[in-house]
Amino acid sequence: MRGLKLCGGPGAPRTVVNVAGLAVGRDFVIIAGPCAVESEEQTLRIARLVKSAGAHMLRGGAFKPRLSPYDFQGLGDEGLRILKAAKQETGLPVVTEVMDARHIEKVSDCADVLQVGSRNMQNFTLLKELGLVDRPILLKRGMNATLEDWLNAAEYILSGGNGRVILCERGIRTFETYTRNTLDLSIVPAAKEVCHLPVIVDPSHGTGRASLVHPMCLAAAAAGADGLLIEVHSHPSRAASDREQQITPEAFAGLVQDVTGILSVVRRSDPVRTA
Amino acid sequence: MRGLKLCGGPGAPRTVVNVAGLAVGRDFVIIAGPCAVESEEQTLRIARLVKSAGAHMLRGGAFKPRLSPYDFQGLGDEGLRILKAAKQETGLPVVTEVMDARHIEKVSDCADVLQVGSRNMQNFTLLKELGLVDRPILLKRGMNATLEDWLNAAEYILSGGNGRVILCERGIRTFETYTRNTLDLSIVPAAKEVCHLPVIVDPSHGTGRASLVHPMCLAAAAAGADGLLIEVHSHPSRAASDREQQITPEAFAGLVQDVTGILSVVRRSDPVRTA
Amino acid sequence: MRGLKLCGGPGAPRTVVNVAGLAVGRDFVIIAGPCAVESEEQTLRIARLVKSAGAHMLRGGAFKPRLSPYDFQGLGDEGLRILKAAKQETGLPVVTEVMDARHIEKVSDCADVLQVGSRNMQNFTLLKELGLVDRPILLKRGMNATLEDWLNAAEYILSGGNGRVILCERGIRTFETYTRNTLDLSIVPAAKEVCHLPVIVDPSHGTGRASLVHPMCLAAAAAGADGLLIEVHSHPSRAASDREQQITPEAFAGLVQDVTGILSVVRRSDPVRTA
Amino acid sequence: MRGLKLCGGPGAPRTVVNVAGLAVGRDFVIIAGPCAVESEEQTLRIARLVKSAGAHMLRGGAFKPRLSPYDFQGLGDEGLRILKAAKQETGLPVVTEVMDARHIEKVSDCADVLQVGSRNMQNFTLLKELGLVDRPILLKRGMNATLEDWLNAAEYILSGGNGRVILCERGIRTFETYTRNTLDLSIVPAAKEVCHLPVIVDPSHGTGRASLVHPMCLAAAAAGADGLLIEVHSHPSRAASDREQQITPEAFAGLVQDVTGILSVVRRSDPVRTA
Repeated sequence: MRGLKLCGGPGAPRTVVNVAGLAVGRDFVIIAGPCAVESEEQTLRIARLVKSAGAHMLRGGAFKPRLSPYDFQGLGDEGLRILKAAKQETGLPVVTEVMDARHIEKVSDCADVLQVGSRNMQNFTLLKELGLVDRPILLKRGMNATLEDWLNAAEYILSGGNGRVILCERGIRTFETYTRNTLDLSIVPAAKEVCHLPVIVDPSHGTGRASLVHPMCLAAAAAGADGLLIEVHSHPSRAASDREQQITPEAFAGLVQDVTGILSVVRRSDPVRTA
Repeated sequence: MRGLKLCGGPGAPRTVVNVAGLAVGRDFVIIAGPCAVESEEQTLRIARLVKSAGAHMLRGGAFKPRLSPYDFQGLGDEGLRILKAAKQETGLPVVTEVMDARHIEKVSDCADVLQVGSRNMQNFTLLKELGLVDRPILLKRGMNATLEDWLNAAEYILSGGNGRVILCERGIRTFETYTRNTLDLSIVPAAKEVCHLPVIVDPSHGTGRASLVHPMCLAAAAAGADGLLIEVHSHPSRAASDREQQITPEAFAGLVQDVTGILSVVRRSDPVRTA
Repeated sequence: MRGLKLCGGPGAPRTVVNVAGLAVGRDFVIIAGPCAVESEEQTLRIARLVKSAGAHMLRGGAFKPRLSPYDFQGLGDEGLRILKAAKQETGLPVVTEVMDARHIEKVSDCADVLQVGSRNMQNFTLLKELGLVDRPILLKRGMNATLEDWLNAAEYILSGGNGRVILCERGIRTFETYTRNTLDLSIVPAAKEVCHLPVIVDPSHGTGRASLVHPMCLAAAAAGADGLLIEVHSHPSRAASDREQQITPEAFAGLVQDVTGILSVVRRSDPVRTA
Repeated sequence: MRGLKLCGGPGAPRTVVNVAGLAVGRDFVIIAGPCAVESEEQTLRIARLVKSAGAHMLRGGAFKPRLSPYDFQGLGDEGLRILKAAKQETGLPVVTEVMDARHIEKVSDCADVLQVGSRNMQNFTLLKELGLVDRPILLKRGMNATLEDWLNAAEYILSGGNGRVILCERGIRTFETYTRNTLDLSIVPAAKEVCHLPVIVDPSHGTGRASLVHPMCLAAAAAGADGLLIEVHSHPSRAASDREQQITPEAFAGLVQDVTGILSVVRRSDPVRTA
């Protein structure tokens, strides 16, 4: 694996990324929330529900990368304001996507973790800017990125001076059409063999089907993932985006319980370093 | 999903395949053994070790489908004789591959389960013959087979009159090169949504790396698989084939323990029918 | 490229396969005919039309590898009889698929070239038998076969003693869904760099869309292919299989003319050997 | 194909994009030059040579999207200055990549066509900005983009008000490893079936091998492409990037001649509109 001066090294102590007191890479983290911030009422309701079910962080998109220019593009600045309100009310740290280097400052004002979406995984301009930022970065694997591509994308951020990177597997594109993508869980232990960063898994995008989210969350926990990113919506069929893959707060609560069962079997402690 | 008269139906009771008293589809089964039968001494030693570690069946190839005609092609009839000896000594039922319709009778003489390899998943001639046989069939997913392709391959066997089919996911071909294939665990719950047959997982071929077999076995169990197919060799680096992906008997023993932990959390009972 | 003792060698003189007087690998060959033999009347009509339009060989399936056991499986022995009649009337040599080693003798009775379909490209049992046969073999690339896989499949035939192998690219499986497969024309010059066998192209399966067959035939000729395999049907919308991709005899006639134009620009002579 | 209000429509007259007097979409255009601008001397020498060989435009990267942060990232502003000098001397219009919305103004100062690289095909922020620009955009297909994804990316630009988009196929990611990517020539006629924009082909990135560039250029021309984008370097083995795929000016000159031969056979006139 070429060029990994900072990411790599099988013998290196594992990195733990501090997010508002959560130790990502040591403690298993569950990040949940709607695909998109649609309204204050919707976001706060879901935030309260996922918090009471055991989520550690809130996710929600204010700026949405969408296939078509005519699809809902997110609420933008108003979405950021709503996320901030949800954070203030629930105390949950917020993860949200930044799509544009010019938005980093305003997104950082509301977000505890800045997400780089899979379509921007090789937006090197954005990655370089995020290397200069004092915020943890959640770096999604591109839909067609090899492990080498992905870790080199992380290296762009680390080499800029920001060592707080969390990797997130979210499915790759294959010929299979039953699922939206093919969730590549083997990349979790593979990434950990050659890189010391935490790795979490997004089974919502990874499968594109609500019915597959539960089993794949358990599988991800068993494979050694450091956390989960899960889309939750009170009324998935009425959601503004990704209707097929969002699960209800009730399903989410059951899921957290079952994941906890898996973790009780598989989690163990490794030597760590804090970033 | 087109054409699944016998395989399909989300509401259908799940099929349990009886293999020498084992109820595949109800009881979790662990099938282990060398990639290839290399000698009587090698096979018996591994058979004893995997049995004592908790394996329920023995795998081993007598006829090997190999990339090159100059690669080791298996011991053939002598391999079948050795498998029979291993079965007699250990009592483990045997799973081995049949590559040729003309070999079905002799392979059936030693094997409790006939395996169709991924390269033969759409060898329709072979599938039709296996529909007429009184032996359970372990049908591996082709490296480039969609779920629809795979279930239609099973339908070929069922429509011939043989309802005892066990599906086996073994990795699909993608652009990723770190792993030999990409193990598609989401296909386990996906296949179960639309089909009532048992589904097991082969992480040895699915990853091609011994170091990834352990976490992917746990993940497969957590995802709801009905069993595992694992390559075990006393001296992987000296094996006649697949050296990178075979694990040692010691590693296998630890794996069985950890899988048992996962199963204690995830297994539950569903209504079943016996085939 | 591993293991190519007989196929390989960039400096080797190119092989020319003699098929009833046609020099495949030196003369550009156009093979045309229906996907499946449906009736004597249908097959003879199409055979006459493609001959008068300039085809050099007739294709048509008697044994059809189909996704589902409930799909039309071909006319079998009756199909072979019809192909023989078409050959006798038109004088066109016949190419047809053999799916089963036990059928080689009877298929050889009617066929000048035995086709191995993409789903059987790694049916090593069949390949070994075809190495013993006195007939040219048209070896389709598997839908997920790398160049190395494909040439090793050819090596199975050559190492058995049959050097008359014609390679046929027919599209690989990718994430793209607009086309049935992705026709990989770069494999034509790539295969010729490392192997001395003739390479032809099947744009009918390669694209799955009749509208794309014409431009991809021209492109294949320009890329240096040694011939084309094209599905032609008098009434594509009423065909028993592959309705979307068969072209009419009229379209075929225009195609032959345009391909001839391309060939007048690109064909040149290389030193050859005859197999 | 969803959401194509402006790109789509099989019956629509074809768009011709005016680039400094060249009618892209009506006249076949050959764009050539080094992967990266390395020095003024290198760029001017290549520019002169490709011009005299028949190139219509000059390509060259000043800002380079590279896998690793430690790879050569391009000369940046100095590269833009050199491109401007090469344009002034040779009169060739310049195509160069813009990776950052904040660079659009300065890149537009030197470039006649702004290129969006494959890794930025779904950088929607950048696409939206380019919709507001008075420059033609060369939009490369993403390595894992379906036709639908690609045309929707174009729709982002068109819906912003900039109708001068040229599509460029440059290979998709598949399991094949002999070539760097798999050049998908069928996408050329496919894109033209559902969209009225010009489509050109980049066989340099599409194959990653200098030896395959020539045949794939001929194939692209035969498939109906509106032009070619070719990497040319005086000393490919000493290039700062993409050494394996750049061809020499001598090879380029021979290529232009052979492409011209193909065009004399395949080009015909369609009704067009100018954008």
